[in-house]
Amino acid sequence: MKKIGILGGGQLGRMLLQSAINYPVETYLMENDAWAPAAHLCHHFSLGDITSFDDVYQFGKDLHAITIEIENVNIEALEALEKKGIKIFPNTTALRIVKNKIRQKQFYQQNQIPTSEFVITENRSDLMQHEGFFPAVHKLAEGGYDGKGVHIIQNKIDIEKGFDAPAVLEKKVPILRELSIIVAVNQQLETVIYPPVEMVFDNYLNLLNYQICPANIPEKVLWKAEAIALTAVKNLHSPGIFAVELFSDIDDNVLINEIAPRVHNSGHHSIEGNYSSQFDMLWRIMLGYPLGNTDTIIPSALVNLVGVSNHQGKVRYKGLEDVLKMDNVFVHLYGKAETKPGRKMGHVTILSNEKQELLHKVNQIKSLLTIVSE
Amino acid sequence: MKKIGILGGGQLGRMLLQSAINYPVETYLMENDAWAPAAHLCHHFSLGDITSFDDVYQFGKDLHAITIEIENVNIEALEALEKKGIKIFPNTTALRIVKNKIRQKQFYQQNQIPTSEFVITENRSDLMQHEGFFPAVHKLAEGGYDGKGVHIIQNKIDIEKGFDAPAVLEKKVPILRELSIIVAVNQQLETVIYPPVEMVFDNYLNLLNYQICPANIPEKVLWKAEAIALTAVKNLHSPGIFAVELFSDIDDNVLINEIAPRVHNSGHHSIEGNYSSQFDMLWRIMLGYPLGNTDTIIPSALVNLVGVSNHQGKVRYKGLEDVLKMDNVFVHLYGKAETKPGRKMGHVTILSNEKQELLHKVNQIKSLLTIVSE
Repeated sequence: MKKIGILGGGQLGRMLLQSAINYPVETYLMENDAWAPAAHLCHHFSLGDITSFDDVYQFGKDLHAITIEIENVNIEALEALEKKGIKIFPNTTALRIVKNKIRQKQFYQQNQIPTSEFVITENRSDLMQHEGFFPAVHKLAEGGYDGKGVHIIQNKIDIEKGFDAPAVLEKKVPILRELSIIVAVNQQLETVIYPPVEMVFDNYLNLLNYQICPANIPEKVLWKAEAIALTAVKNLHSPGIFAVELFSDIDDNVLINEIAPRVHNSGHHSIEGNYSSQFDMLWRIMLGYPLGNTDTIIPSALVNLVGVSNHQGKVRYKGLEDVLKMDNVFVHLYGKAETKPGRKMGHVTILSNEKQELLHKVNQIKSLLTIVSE
Repeated sequence: MKKIGILGGGQLGRMLLQSAINYPVETYLMENDAWAPAAHLCHHFSLGDITSFDDVYQFGKDLHAITIEIENVNIEALEALEKKGIKIFPNTTALRIVKNKIRQKQFYQQNQIPTSEFVITENRSDLMQHEGFFPAVHKLAEGGYDGKGVHIIQNKIDIEKGFDAPAVLEKKVPILRELSIIVAVNQQLETVIYPPVEMVFDNYLNLLNYQICPANIPEKVLWKAEAIALTAVKNLHSPGIFAVELFSDIDDNVLINEIAPRVHNSGHHSIEGNYSSQFDMLWRIMLGYPLGNTDTIIPSALVNLVGVSNHQGKVRYKGLEDVLKMDNVFVHLYGKAETKPGRKMGHVTILSNEKQELLHKVNQIKSLLTIVSE
């Protein structure tokens, strides 16, 4: 059996290991918390720091392959392992580009992939020179996740909120839709593409509110989005799963927002909604199996279950029973012991051929089920 | 989080733990092999003998609930644990009836559930007195599984093949169809029933060849089968998952064959084919959640992957890639290192609204994929 390791033990690792159960593979996982959501689901768990060179190198040196569930890992160790012949998904060249938002933007520019205008800022005071650029989005080059590491700079007054570290300042674009397309790339660099997802966000926490798949978009937008997603991913020249986030505007222009070089929240519906889920697909890629079928089985909507504000401590899933009674709904709880405001604690997928039913159930679930502390 | 234990670490435990990943639960598992298919998928693994009183009692004494993946467990220990207030799924009264084929037959008789005629034999020479009963099926009272513990006695000459231990001799009935219906019972003893499965067997190994769900049967047969399955399970007065195997003949009479008081091979298609799979349903029952929806999402067929004869040793899935390329097919491999003749090594589920496509793909899979040794 192949020995494959995962860096990070959160919900992405958890669902990845859930899919691994369908295949013969010896699984390894490293995380700094033995009670992390995925820690108990592998053959071999290592307590360690995924940002430490030594920990990552020691973890990986006898494995066949490694994947990540978060970009913020020690890339130098992965490069050293890759030189030894251990396969890294995504490869380290792609990871270096994507994990740094400055390099990511430059990559789009170099490859003529439509993206919002941007400038690079080295520190907070650099923002002063770009007043003409406001309103804009300031994104920390490294270390952001789940909406952290992003600030909106509406005007001069907001400059004090800006990051005093290398960052990208992106011109705010008038967004009609936010889309995500997942692209899978096998070891021969052949690609398959999932149907697009439309994402609707909570502007306050910058967390996904719900998503629907396939997105109900004009054909022209679909074609542009697919072309951009494929072009961007192909230019990374790396096997793996890539979630490409895109914007479209009222004139049906499509811009790339960013790429996550891994399984992604925007693909969770694929567990029930698609023949081969994003998790299944990554195992196929890593194990050298044929790519799976990305077709939709039944259209889906997905609601993230996030900790409500003002609640921190031992988690309670208030209203869970009401949602478990719903007919065509799949509940996924990540097994995290503690909730805190905005923390992703689970998700619910709804399957239906009727868009109205999907939206109705989204609203029902959001009003019935809340994540609070005990 | 509730602490729930599983006795047995084979493929049923494996798929049960795969489903547990959707819920907050602390999982325990006992098996005498640390490399069993399910061993690495729980929070706490105990190396132990599930037929030993001490091992089972020690394993269970601090848990909230226990379930089984095989009937051949130490029932006295489970009774002692049940008295302490630990919930057993199924309860030990039901388990005592079902795990012994003599008691199981008497239970059907007492509850007027239609079943084939039978006599009880204490030893091989008892068979001499029942020549008028042949052709018949001789079933060992305890310890059989996967076709082991069953002999066909066609005539007097076959008596020497009979079991020299307590057993049931069942009159052979003219079978047109073999059906299975899974019934789920929650802690309040409310029931839900899955659509019936039609099973087609390999007569040589007495192993399932393929199954199709929902079964294409006359309404009259469906109603009788459902009534028998529900009556039988309700009379066990136990929460849990129960697979009821039935026969129907050319006159559409329906007889109960036997009950398995646990998740069962005839329910594996429910992972992809039904809103709540048999595995999901058992967690709902054990965690005190509402019962799930047993409706079919899309009709399915299922092929078991069993070790071919004359092959024993390190497993090779010959032709696996061809099956992984098929569009609407889900491969489940149980991660067993060694194959042997007749050993269940995995299964493949096919989803399609077209019965012809299901059967076509069953045949394709059976001709493409074989389980051999390296």
